[in-house]
This record gives sequence, structure tokens and C-alpha cells, in this order.
Amino acid sequence: MHIIDSIDYFYLSLPEILDISDGSQDALLVRVISGEFTGWGECEASPLVTIASMISPMSHSTCKPVAVSALGEAIESPKDIYRIHEKIRRNSADLLQADHALSGIDIALWDLLGKIRQEPIYKLLGFNQAYPKVPYYSLLFDTTPEGTFKKARQAVNDGFKAVKFGWGTFGRKTLQSDIDHIVAAREGLGEDPILCVDAGMIWGSDVNNAVKRLPTLEKFNVTWLEEPFFALALDEYRELSKRSKKVKLAGGEAAHNEYIAKLMIDYAGIDYIQIDPGRIGGITSAKRVFDYVDKSNKIFVNHTFTSHLALSAALQTFAGGKRHFLCEYPGQISQLGKDLTTTHLSPNKDGEITLPEGPGLGLNPNLEKLQKYLLNVHINVNGECLYLTPPLTQ
Amino acid sequence: MHIIDSIDYFYLSLPEILDISDGSQDALLVRVISGEFTGWGECEASPLVTIASMISPMSHSTCKPVAVSALGEAIESPKDIYRIHEKIRRNSADLLQADHALSGIDIALWDLLGKIRQEPIYKLLGFNQAYPKVPYYSLLFDTTPEGTFKKARQAVNDGFKAVKFGWGTFGRKTLQSDIDHIVAAREGLGEDPILCVDAGMIWGSDVNNAVKRLPTLEKFNVTWLEEPFFALALDEYRELSKRSKKVKLAGGEAAHNEYIAKLMIDYAGIDYIQIDPGRIGGITSAKRVFDYVDKSNKIFVNHTFTSHLALSAALQTFAGGKRHFLCEYPGQISQLGKDLTTTHLSPNKDGEITLPEGPGLGLNPNLEKLQKYLLNVHINVNGECLYLTPPLTQ
Repeated sequence: MHIIDSIDYFYLSLPEILDISDGSQDALLVRVISGEFTGWGECEASPLVTIASMISPMSHSTCKPVAVSALGEAIESPKDIYRIHEKIRRNSADLLQADHALSGIDIALWDLLGKIRQEPIYKLLGFNQAYPKVPYYSLLFDTTPEGTFKKARQAVNDGFKAVKFGWGTFGRKTLQSDIDHIVAAREGLGEDPILCVDAGMIWGSDVNNAVKRLPTLEKFNVTWLEEPFFALALDEYRELSKRSKKVKLAGGEAAHNEYIAKLMIDYAGIDYIQIDPGRIGGITSAKRVFDYVDKSNKIFVNHTFTSHLALSAALQTFAGGKRHFLCEYPGQISQLGKDLTTTHLSPNKDGEITLPEGPGLGLNPNLEKLQKYLLNVHINVNGECLYLTPPLTQ
Repeated sequence: MHIIDSIDYFYLSLPEILDISDGSQDALLVRVISGEFTGWGECEASPLVTIASMISPMSHSTCKPVAVSALGEAIESPKDIYRIHEKIRRNSADLLQADHALSGIDIALWDLLGKIRQEPIYKLLGFNQAYPKVPYYSLLFDTTPEGTFKKARQAVNDGFKAVKFGWGTFGRKTLQSDIDHIVAAREGLGEDPILCVDAGMIWGSDVNNAVKRLPTLEKFNVTWLEEPFFALALDEYRELSKRSKKVKLAGGEAAHNEYIAKLMIDYAGIDYIQIDPGRIGGITSAKRVFDYVDKSNKIFVNHTFTSHLALSAALQTFAGGKRHFLCEYPGQISQLGKDLTTTHLSPNKDGEITLPEGPGLGLNPNLEKLQKYLLNVHINVNGECLYLTPPLTQ
């Protein structure tokens, strides 16, 4: 009988956080211990706020702190994780941050179960094998088209067959500036590699501004346009998808539950659905979305911009889906992101990413290297200590 | 020129929080100061988590602490509030709890602007007059049908013409138990009063379990069935709405932005859309949803279960909508909820609720009475104090 003995959270951060879109500048690591076994997970979320949601005093019956619903529960099979997952969603339904907190716990529970059962997570999820994925390299648009050209050329030289440019100057200057960057990216890549563009929600809910970019995106063979609008502007997505001839839409990284993901698939006209297990509710929710997408003609892709721990968690959820061939590969992650794991999922000789066959996530946090990033958090309410960062150990 | 000088948050709580659905057991009060003027708001959210989201260190460019986007901004007209609102949504797009935190700031900004301009908020929102609303009294189903009967009878004796029963035992026992409670509620009320039922998400995503209750709900003339499913189970709502002949569906309290509310209206087949300004993004977002609903044949209703400060905020957003005649009136609120304001919005001689004509929200927190509920919160990261509860003063 394996009982969840403890759940702990570790706020890791670079010494200085810059006002840029790089989401790997900090991290929240979750550790779940059951007897001799330890599972690890990572939330793609504000660390301090997520810690608060783990330990916050109860407000009422459906606004309970997240961790309390998992502590003391038994974990022997995937069914136990589904039960704990459901319990957290229900007990913390009115706690908005709970979906992000649950994500980290859920991933750690799957890692824990994998270690107990000595199996990789994708097998526990019912996949017979893990197909290699073609990594698309995520890069930020440079400040100049020349810079974007150089980044694209470098990516090809590094062996990547798919590249996504996003954020940076894109959408923030003139239409011509955006055209120049897309031309530069395509020229840098050459004709064959897959090119995707991430607009980073820049047009809010303004469909026309997005439509103006479509001819250039089509002309330079851009596979998808990602997040042109606010995450839940589904009517705007739907409208744009109807007005696009060739360029597909991508989105979904902000989905914090399965319902939102399904609406993006069924209603918003998105063809590439991008799910981050560190936000949507962990591996459990991501796998359910995968199963749903797999029954359609749409494509499931991971969203991963932080570490290889997060990357492994994401790959487990669609490992057995041969048709879903692309994976986001965090390219320009911070030193913290690199130091987060002892091993990394590097492209093989064919330039593809394969999952490790070790139990659980198949890789572990690099506890030695992470010590210097650990922030000491202390939360005290009316003289009672609700959270004090514990030692970061196995 | 009025500049936002400070934003502060006050975690108020009863000495003991019970594991019941009463959301008035704690509260988060938000205070915004500009020179000699003070505005107040209230979030319907986990206080500690929301405080953390106000002051949390930045994670990246779209995961910034909420308060920082409002501090130092000028506020002279509604346009300024719209600008600050938009800035918070964008700067904190990846911080899930931000929508709840924004809600409190937004309400406080409208109160502040009302005090600067010496006008009630509903006039600043463009309404010419505030129509009285018929309060529906929110009650929890009792443990026994006899208890539910007595509560219903008491509500009628107290002058209420509309009552909603919810939560408690409903949906947790047998179908017959639910039938008994609905029969008891209708018998207690008599033939004429409006009776609504709140299922408190009890059936998760199980449409059949909800369908089984429809004949009884129809037979006993229940106006709406509220939240039969998880908030975003929109397909299930849609399916149930098609299978119901007479009973309408109500929902929307969990909507934490306008997009979700619109989906509930357009996609889910909900006829009574219930918006809580303390969750959806404040008065700004609630008013936008009202404008949208008002163009349809659907009905806008507030969701309010905490205090009369929250009630005033909610009423301002649909004050001018004559057709939208009902308002949720927090019935069984805690002593904290009662003590939260110096004055209360009591039914007039016709049993209806009217908004006060004072500036802003038209009522103020009872600072003297609230002192005993104030929790002292201290959040410290790496030796730096990020939050320490300030004195609760005007």
C-alpha cells in the first residue's frame, strides 16, 4: 500500500527576471513522496501564487487548498491518480489558480507511479510504444530581420527541420516589419523546413489585423499561425479560420482544463492544438485531450517552454500518436531551464526526439545544480507558518 | 490629475471556517487610494492566493503581479479604468489567479472614480436610472425536507417573492430525496413565488442524472436549474437545455472573463446568465456581459453570496436593465458578511432592492467592526518582505 506522505513545492528563479516573454526564467518544482519513492512535477505557472494555492486556508467547501486533497491518498494504479485529480478539481473549483497547481501535482503523481511500477508513464497511459517526434525549435523573433535570418539559418545548421518564430517585435510595429521578418525567416530556413509563427496574442480580439498578415504567411508557406488573439477569443479564432485558405491556426497553451481545449478544437477552428501539461491539469488532462484530438483530423502538439522535465511530461501524453509528429522543443531556455534536469532529451541522429525508457518521466531534477536557484519562501498568517521552503532533496 | 497612489488588500475571516458551501466565511477587501479619495472593492476569491497574485514577483512579460499594472496610473474617466483593466489582463495573461485579483481592483477603481466625480457607478456606466430589483433569497437546502419546507415558509413570511434553494443534500442522495426537497420547497413557498434550484455542479458532466430531475422541476414550476454541471461543461449544458421543455438553465458564476460568459450564452443554451463582478474582472467585465445579454432575449442576473458591498457592485452593472428584474440577495451570510458594510441594501416596502444614490458604490466598509476579522499576512521571499498586512483604515 503506497500512501502519499508529503507534497512540497520549490520556487526556483534566475537572480534577475527580465520583462521578456522567456517563460524559463523561473520554475515551480513539485515533489511528492510515498515511502521510499519520490515523484517530480513542474507547473508552468507563477511560483509564489501557485504555492499559495497549495497551502491557502480553506475559504469554503469548494475553495480548499490544493495539496490537502492529495495528501494521505493511496496510489497503486492510474485509477488512483484519476480519483485524486477529480477530487482536487471539485474541492478547489472556486480557486482559480488550482488548475495550475493541480498540473504540477498530477505530473509528480504519474512520475511517482512510474517509479513504483518501474514503467515509463506512456506505458501506464496505455501506449504500446513511443514514436520519435520531429522537434520544432522555438525561437523569439529578433529585433531586426537580419537577426531573424541569422537565427533561422543557425537552426537549420543545428539540424532542425522545423522552426517556430514568435513574440519579439512581431505585430508590434508595421505590417511591413512583420512581412520583412517572415521573409527573413523563410530565407534563413530555405524552402523545405517547416516554419510556424507565434503571434503571442498581439492582436487581442482584432480579426482584421490578423487577416492582413495572411497573404504573406501563405506566400511563405507558414504551417500555422499561433495565438493571434487572446486565448479565449474563440469567436475571433473561428472567424479567422474561415478567412484563411492555407495557413492553419494553432492555440491552446493557456487552456487550464479539458473543457476549454475541447471548445478550441470544436468551436474555434484550430487545427494544431497545443497543450501544456503544466497548465491544463497535468498528464491526466493532457492525455484526455490527446485522445479527443486523435479521433478527429486535427493534430496534437505539446506546449513546452521551460525544461526537459516539462518536455518529458508533455511527450508522454501523446507518445503513441504517430500522426501527431511534431513536438515543441524548448530552444532558447535559460540556464535554470537547462540545469533543471540531470539529463536532456537531445535530438537523435535523425534529428528526432525520443522519450527515455526509464521509469516515470525517465529523467530527474538536478538537485545539486538547483540549490543556487532555490528561493526561500515564508508565508505566515496570524502568526502561523503556512509555508516555509523545505530543503531541496530527493 | 488623480494618480493611483496605493493598492492594499485585507484578508478578513471568521475565526473558524467550516467545510460548507457558505462563501461568506472569509473575504478579500481591496483599497485603492488616490490623494484624498479612497475606493473599495471585494474579490469573490481565495484571499491568500489573490494577495499572492497581487504582489508575486514577475515570472515573464505576461506573468506580472496584478497590482503593478495599476499603480501610478491616472484615473479621471471610465476610459482610464478600461485602459488599466486591459493592461492588467495583458500583463498578467499567464497568471491564472489574476482575473479574480483584477475583479477587486476594478470594483475599487469604479468606487474611487464615483467618489472623485460624486456620482453613483451606474451613472458612470451610462445608465439613466437604477430600476428596483426583485430579490431572490439564496438558501441552502436543509438536511430534511421538513427543514427545507420551514425555510421556504420563513422566506415567504419575510416578504420574499423569489427563493433559490441550493447545495446541501441536493443531488447527493437518491432521486426520491431530491424530489421530496423540491416538493417541500414548493409547498413551503405556496403557488406564486418564484422557485429556483441550484445543483452546485453536483452531476459533474453526467447529463442523464440531471435529466432525471427535469419532470419534478417542471411539475413544481421551478424557474431555473442552476449549475447542474462543472462550470465549463458547455456541451453538457447544451444537451440538457435541448432536453428540457420548460425549465431554463442558469449558470455563469464561475466565468472569470467575458469570453467564457459569451460562450455560456451563445453555445451552452443558458437562459439566465449569472455574473459575479468579484470574479469575472470587476464591474467593467460584468457591464460588458450585461450589454451583450441585453441584446438577446436572455436574462442577466447577479451572482452575490458574500456582502452588501459585493451586492452593490453587482447591481450597478445591470441597474438600468428593466427587463433583468431579479437579483440574487445574499440571505444567510455570515456575521462577517453582515459586518462588512456600515449600511445594507434592505428590501423596500414593495420587497424590492434599490441602489443607494451615494457616490461610487454608495456604501462603505465598516472599518471599526472589521478589525476583529483582519488576518495578519506576511509573505517573505529570500528575506524580502513582499506583503505585510497594513492597518485597515480609510
